[in-house]
Amino acid sequence: MEITKILLEEKEMPTKWYNILPDLPAPLPPPLSGHTETLGKPATPADLAFFTPTILGQEFSPERYVEIPEEVQRAYFLWRPTPMYRAYRLEKALDTPARIYYKYEGTSPAGSHKPNTAVAQAYYNKKEGIKRLTTETGAGQWGSALAFACMLFGLELKVYMVKVSYNQKPYRRIMMETWGAKCVPSPSPDTKAGRAVLAKDPNSPGSLGIAIGEAVEDALTHPDDTKYSIGSVANHVLMHQTIIGEESLIQMEKAGYYPDIIVGCIGGGSNFAGMFLPFIRDKISKKKPNLRVIAVEPQAAPSLTKGPYAYDYGDEAELTFLVKMNTLGHTFVPPPVHAGGLRYHGKAPILCHLYQLGLIEARDEYQIPVFAAGVKFARTEGIIPAPEAAHAVKVVIDEAIACKKSGQAKTILLALSGHGHFDLAAYSDYLSGKLEDYEYPAEKVKEALAFLPKV
Amino acid sequence: MEITKILLEEKEMPTKWYNILPDLPAPLPPPLSGHTETLGKPATPADLAFFTPTILGQEFSPERYVEIPEEVQRAYFLWRPTPMYRAYRLEKALDTPARIYYKYEGTSPAGSHKPNTAVAQAYYNKKEGIKRLTTETGAGQWGSALAFACMLFGLELKVYMVKVSYNQKPYRRIMMETWGAKCVPSPSPDTKAGRAVLAKDPNSPGSLGIAIGEAVEDALTHPDDTKYSIGSVANHVLMHQTIIGEESLIQMEKAGYYPDIIVGCIGGGSNFAGMFLPFIRDKISKKKPNLRVIAVEPQAAPSLTKGPYAYDYGDEAELTFLVKMNTLGHTFVPPPVHAGGLRYHGKAPILCHLYQLGLIEARDEYQIPVFAAGVKFARTEGIIPAPEAAHAVKVVIDEAIACKKSGQAKTILLALSGHGHFDLAAYSDYLSGKLEDYEYPAEKVKEALAFLPKV
Repeated sequence: MEITKILLEEKEMPTKWYNILPDLPAPLPPPLSGHTETLGKPATPADLAFFTPTILGQEFSPERYVEIPEEVQRAYFLWRPTPMYRAYRLEKALDTPARIYYKYEGTSPAGSHKPNTAVAQAYYNKKEGIKRLTTETGAGQWGSALAFACMLFGLELKVYMVKVSYNQKPYRRIMMETWGAKCVPSPSPDTKAGRAVLAKDPNSPGSLGIAIGEAVEDALTHPDDTKYSIGSVANHVLMHQTIIGEESLIQMEKAGYYPDIIVGCIGGGSNFAGMFLPFIRDKISKKKPNLRVIAVEPQAAPSLTKGPYAYDYGDEAELTFLVKMNTLGHTFVPPPVHAGGLRYHGKAPILCHLYQLGLIEARDEYQIPVFAAGVKFARTEGIIPAPEAAHAVKVVIDEAIACKKSGQAKTILLALSGHGHFDLAAYSDYLSGKLEDYEYPAEKVKEALAFLPKV
Repeated sequence: MEITKILLEEKEMPTKWYNILPDLPAPLPPPLSGHTETLGKPATPADLAFFTPTILGQEFSPERYVEIPEEVQRAYFLWRPTPMYRAYRLEKALDTPARIYYKYEGTSPAGSHKPNTAVAQAYYNKKEGIKRLTTETGAGQWGSALAFACMLFGLELKVYMVKVSYNQKPYRRIMMETWGAKCVPSPSPDTKAGRAVLAKDPNSPGSLGIAIGEAVEDALTHPDDTKYSIGSVANHVLMHQTIIGEESLIQMEKAGYYPDIIVGCIGGGSNFAGMFLPFIRDKISKKKPNLRVIAVEPQAAPSLTKGPYAYDYGDEAELTFLVKMNTLGHTFVPPPVHAGGLRYHGKAPILCHLYQLGLIEARDEYQIPVFAAGVKFARTEGIIPAPEAAHAVKVVIDEAIACKKSGQAKTILLALSGHGHFDLAAYSDYLSGKLEDYEYPAEKVKEALAFLPKV
């Protein structure tokens, strides 16, 4: 019998994260200050004071590999190494000569890849004497992951959760509370940023940008014991996520194939970057010049395929520093597609930089065909993918069908970031024909881009 | 570093199920007919016609081991072998010298142990020309598992889901539909049994007994292409679940310890029997005379600790044959505790027989301390257990504390049957102090026991 599942023992788990910064063929544009008085000047440590020193050091580290602390490794062992599967049943259903492998991060207690960086961040903050973290969360993937991590290391956590999700999706909030975190709907009356939004619109549904602003403000106004923690976009987050790709390298070697195509979905981009960065160094070094890396966005928020490459804020309230990225504008509020984790206005600077350098490709997809792909996956491989991950499944299926047409037995590696246990209402809408699709909101993007900082 | 997780490769997965029937120290009381005209006479094949021949053969098999068909093994590989963990963090929090291991079945696509028998039953039915299965489900664990299995083997499935759960817990229904099954609320107008209940009470919330009656009737009235599939209680189901214990034997050996105590929750009893049957043969053979096996029930439906050992029906509508078991009476409707999977009036005959022989112990627990134990587990090991599994966690914690008092470093093995992703509303009730507890409903049991068949 062919092997379905490629497992790694704990002793086989990589003990280092991979940092691509020193391997980039051109340097990453530096962050700039976002404050009115210093707008566009190089960001200073003061601009980044909401991160703890080790995290800040990792954000700009020149080291190619960073040792994973033993305590973090021990935490990883609660669910890592994660399994890689050969999707025999999906291949058969598609009648494709392609070999499809998927790396599944849904076995973590929080059900996604997010704990990979959450436990690292909680560990470093705890070690450096921080007592409390703040963060934002959209649908709750990141908030629940950080709640899990703060539980492991004994840190307090306050999560600002986008109000519409707080009300409509109580399950991830309850997960956070079960792990001991405090979760409030954002905009909240607890911060100046929140109060300002509520003054203008008491019924504001909130947005990720607003929630980031609240969480950052909370950390900045409690400098003695509190730091801010971010779940994607930042360089150090992508580095922590490379445990996915480093494990996958070993697993693909055990499988006996090197991927021709790697596919993943991108919101901030950390899951997919965590997967492909350890592979793309082989493309940069010309060892694997033909490797294709395809990042998949929702049609409702396609920063890479339709946004300009420009300096922008990470949050609506303009409290963060500026990073250069493909952006739809920091005031942009995407249509309410079900893939809550892909509804961010920008993308990770490293990811955008590689896109600008032509090292990765991007696609945008509508949600109805995405859910069709998710159901196809559930009805072959058994796992019901998160709507975010289903975006990647859609493109994997397209590529596998292309292989059928061309007769090529390519090896496709799918980054399956999490399960859809808390997104079943969306699957129900799809199955009952009630799911709506959303066009690219060109006018709203145009409006938002007018607010790009002039740097 | 000590190993947290004990994994098995696919090639290490046992290829046989263990059948305890030939090893029982006294024979299992046989099933009896439940029809009015033949009541109490030995059951005939006609009484069991809703099972397909191979399943029926396995129900009474004299073979100690039954080969797992290659197709079933391949299906198992989608999530098996399942991991075993050392609960270091829980041990530390309890400051106990006990070694706590847990075998986690929550990594299956359906999130519980149920697919272990579902895929076997779907496979045999498909192989024997059956086109369609029927079943009942309470909270949806079993229905979703069988939906997954029928998807794998291309069978139609109709699930009769207890109406109160159908309305209150839509997520598992959506899982079933995502995998392609049809799910209706029971009592339904689709069967005579359902119509009879609706005629008496159009607002009946339904019960597992009623739903079983509907599913059995559906199979019996479509004899050409349809069979009934049961998710617990029956001998063949327990046998299919022994893959859990057979894997655990290997994993405990890798860990270097043999368990002193094995703990699991029991609804019908198949998960826990699947775990302990491969171990208890060592107790029967006197190889491990001191092994303790503790089955944990809810205080709201404690068949083992408070029900008589008597012949009874499996369903409210009296369509099944009679089995000898500890029962609270087939018309008993338990209080609405959140552990939906433990709200059955009886228990597996094999389990009850072993209990009568003094080979296993039983405990009943209130749900508030059970949820406290579930939260303790979530806040140490990270996994949020299903409320059913949290019953077992409660007793494991009690035993670990007893070890602390006695200073004994016992090895405790916990059967953790599934995750609580679809039970978070119950956790929320517990965390907010809204959760109610239920006394043992002695009067209702007395009433129900008056309806035991007179055999």
